[in-house]
Amino acid sequence: MVGTTDQTLRPFLWRAAKLYPDREIVSRTHEGLSRTTYAAYDRRVARLANALDDAGVSRDARVGTFCWNHTRHFETYFGVPCRGSQLHTINPLLPDHHVQYIVENAADELLFVDPSLVESLESAATDADGAFDAVEQFVVMGSDVPETSLDPVTDYESFLADDETYDWPDLDEERPAGMCYTSGTTGKPKGVEYSQQTMWAHTMGILPEAGLDLRASDVVMPVVPMFHVMAWGLPHAVTAAGGKHVYPGPAPDPADIARLIEDERVTFTAGVPTVWLGLLDYLEENDADLSSLERIAIGGAAAPESLIREYEESYDVQVLHAWGMTETSPVAAAAHLKPGMESWPAEKRDRKRVKQGLVLPGLEFKVMGEEGEIPWNGEDFGELWIRGPWVTTEYFGRPEANETDFVDGWLKTGDVVTVDPEGYIQIVDRAKDVIKSGGEWISSQELENAIMAHDDVTEATVIGVPHEKWQERPVAFVVAREGVGGGPLMADIRDLLAEDYPEWWLPDDVVYVESIPKTATGKFDKKVLRDEYADHEIDDVPEEAAPEEE
Amino acid sequence: MVGTTDQTLRPFLWRAAKLYPDREIVSRTHEGLSRTTYAAYDRRVARLANALDDAGVSRDARVGTFCWNHTRHFETYFGVPCRGSQLHTINPLLPDHHVQYIVENAADELLFVDPSLVESLESAATDADGAFDAVEQFVVMGSDVPETSLDPVTDYESFLADDETYDWPDLDEERPAGMCYTSGTTGKPKGVEYSQQTMWAHTMGILPEAGLDLRASDVVMPVVPMFHVMAWGLPHAVTAAGGKHVYPGPAPDPADIARLIEDERVTFTAGVPTVWLGLLDYLEENDADLSSLERIAIGGAAAPESLIREYEESYDVQVLHAWGMTETSPVAAAAHLKPGMESWPAEKRDRKRVKQGLVLPGLEFKVMGEEGEIPWNGEDFGELWIRGPWVTTEYFGRPEANETDFVDGWLKTGDVVTVDPEGYIQIVDRAKDVIKSGGEWISSQELENAIMAHDDVTEATVIGVPHEKWQERPVAFVVAREGVGGGPLMADIRDLLAEDYPEWWLPDDVVYVESIPKTATGKFDKKVLRDEYADHEIDDVPEEAAPEEE
Repeated sequence: MVGTTDQTLRPFLWRAAKLYPDREIVSRTHEGLSRTTYAAYDRRVARLANALDDAGVSRDARVGTFCWNHTRHFETYFGVPCRGSQLHTINPLLPDHHVQYIVENAADELLFVDPSLVESLESAATDADGAFDAVEQFVVMGSDVPETSLDPVTDYESFLADDETYDWPDLDEERPAGMCYTSGTTGKPKGVEYSQQTMWAHTMGILPEAGLDLRASDVVMPVVPMFHVMAWGLPHAVTAAGGKHVYPGPAPDPADIARLIEDERVTFTAGVPTVWLGLLDYLEENDADLSSLERIAIGGAAAPESLIREYEESYDVQVLHAWGMTETSPVAAAAHLKPGMESWPAEKRDRKRVKQGLVLPGLEFKVMGEEGEIPWNGEDFGELWIRGPWVTTEYFGRPEANETDFVDGWLKTGDVVTVDPEGYIQIVDRAKDVIKSGGEWISSQELENAIMAHDDVTEATVIGVPHEKWQERPVAFVVAREGVGGGPLMADIRDLLAEDYPEWWLPDDVVYVESIPKTATGKFDKKVLRDEYADHEIDDVPEEAAPEEE
Repeated sequence: MVGTTDQTLRPFLWRAAKLYPDREIVSRTHEGLSRTTYAAYDRRVARLANALDDAGVSRDARVGTFCWNHTRHFETYFGVPCRGSQLHTINPLLPDHHVQYIVENAADELLFVDPSLVESLESAATDADGAFDAVEQFVVMGSDVPETSLDPVTDYESFLADDETYDWPDLDEERPAGMCYTSGTTGKPKGVEYSQQTMWAHTMGILPEAGLDLRASDVVMPVVPMFHVMAWGLPHAVTAAGGKHVYPGPAPDPADIARLIEDERVTFTAGVPTVWLGLLDYLEENDADLSSLERIAIGGAAAPESLIREYEESYDVQVLHAWGMTETSPVAAAAHLKPGMESWPAEKRDRKRVKQGLVLPGLEFKVMGEEGEIPWNGEDFGELWIRGPWVTTEYFGRPEANETDFVDGWLKTGDVVTVDPEGYIQIVDRAKDVIKSGGEWISSQELENAIMAHDDVTEATVIGVPHEKWQERPVAFVVAREGVGGGPLMADIRDLLAEDYPEWWLPDDVVYVESIPKTATGKFDKKVLRDEYADHEIDDVPEEAAPEEE
């Protein structure tokens, strides 16, 4: 055994406050723009830690936040874990029953809540049937308390203690330090715990070029919400780098985002594709100076190639496609170009950039098909398995999920991917949606995208329906444009698909529906369709509904 | 406790071999230039691991290397630790009795040795009085074995097994993986062990901008020997980044270095100041294309400002001053400019660049004077204490040194430093050389440098001589230029020093000597002088040999 010091978060902030005391932390807030420095921030973090002591919050408590992206929320990012507690960021956009489940499951002792989200939290806390029993205190992120049924409640500025120093404990690196819940499109949300060590490792993992390449000169604005896997780890990593932070505040619209980029000279920002599509739309009608902006990291969903190209060609901004999950802290892959690829023709280059990319140094992955690891040819696909120092190997208190989702320390991601010969991963489907026909896999997402490209289709989804001989066969559900007849469209769709896919991939039936059922977060709810159509009879199955034997 | 995967070295190589299979590893060797790829290298590493199995080397063995910088040596960097053993790099330039002590203390089971170093190793192994008893096998780094008394001995190419795959074990991150000995200018060399985790953390620590900023596009040539703290961790970190490696082989001269930079398009190189002074001299007389070279990391000793400026102005190469020790894995600080400093006037900027710099993210330091932490004003100084995930907290089997060199997990570095208001560290002395006069410290190095600036002085050193009232007082030892008389020079020196230093700093005596005693590595041996002059009487002590009370 070799002696060393534990991997903990505190030294990152210590260093920023000592070496970059005047570097700024800027935030759009309910009350306008706030502006502080690492040195002042560090003192506020100490006041917060003292306040948690004064409030009797136990050292190993979980402390929840129900907040947008702003400096006070950022204060909890160091104040809570560095005193030894666990920061639990809660998604305020979830339905009440999910919030109730999460708060109960995590047994949060104290909840921080934004003024504009007090009503949502009240709604979840009312008739919560004991789910909020562990919560001993609500703190509203402002300098006063609105009329509310939350009780006991105080405002953040009154809550803070006066003492601007804190005797930070030397923590064990295995100590739990953070917690997030998966969005839970099926079943109950699953809790993922982060330790001081996993957060340290993720921070170090995303700093280098192969990660997000964060530098002291960067001005970083996380548009990705701080309740989405800790804003992809940016608040901690930007602090480690000594960069400037810009937080866009509650529910920023494209005008807010454009103004902050221009005013604060943002160099790096990050968020889901819809945000950046929205900004492009805004920029078509409005002027904004984006000249400081160098890079946008996009994740959470696939970024269209047109989006990547538009930012590069019109604004000289490089889009970095990144991939991760709650279970991977989250950043696990990024679609960096390799040395030499910069000089490729734009189209060939962009075919790499739209992929989920290259796994980060320190992690390992494999892609498992029905018969073991698939070849890296960009065509075969299987489920992505991943492991590493910032990938979890278990869910919080969910032994039944641990049985199915982990194997020998590998996380079965549930994403079905291809790997091309250069090692770039691309997601083609979710494992639960992939259609298993005769021992081979068909990507439901690819078929859906192809069908939705048809002018007369407004929505489409494809599921696997049980089949005696072939295990499953694809059936498509289509919402047609108003006034379009069914018969000819079905033939059209099959012709369209036949151009790009083998016979055995083609849906054996196309069912016309008024609308496709959706989940709370707006995704197609295939589970409902699968239950409803479990006994759907298919007549038109091809003779060989699997690839020919070689 | 939060479940995760251990931090180990193997995934770095796995990733490079899978994602950068064709990226090159080039090496100057005894037999000319060798050239391979990560994919082929990975297979050789597997053959090496199999060979160690076949040779009966135990899993938890220490395996020593006595080698220059080349690909075969690099193969041991992953082959040895990834099978679970401990890589122990031995400095072949040490005197025999140090090599004997080190090999005995580490109990190396097997030694790899370069053909050109066989004689040195033979010399140490002869009459070694049992020091080599644990060594069961010598392997010469080539394809044949020279005439030698080393026994049993084989050549590396015959030693390698045929099997190009290896069933790499999942290792505990706390498992010892590496070992180096401090150079031991006083007393016996002290062993520092590295674990899988500390090497992982150091690798991640030096990848980002705040470290050495290593990128996939970099072509990295470590001129710093691989027996000097693992070539500052570059072989592992360049692999993690997916960069190209260039190894300069046995005893490279400036012509070798210039040719490799030119031919292999090196972008980043690293070594001690003398190497880069030598290259500048060479370039004055010879042509070489250095246009690919972007950065040189310099460490091991302070780089003169003129050197930094010459590379920047004449070759557009940025010199990065870095600092570390065997105990810190080694890189712990680097003199990066902060945002905004790039536009400073060159002289002001270079005053930052000559310092040891900013401590890396993840580490913490403090500077301890006689009365606690010193202020960060660039003038006061004290001993640098440091701690963090890649800083050791103990020496191997040396409880007496652990008592004196570590306090509560902090490493007392033995370096006396100032810290300026921007947080840049600068070494002013070694702790054992600093002169303690009336509770205040005087830097012996500063006085020496000032005295040596006198035209009539060829060598000078300053030590503290015990003094009843003031504890110690400075005495200078001077070697004068031939034909220069003593008396007037002494007055000159005092006048010279009085310009820049307070009265109480001035040496109370200047002793003329024929030569100054030196250590085996060519440094002034102050210990000999201190012993000899312990009773030296000083008449000319000022009335107040300490700063005035404020």
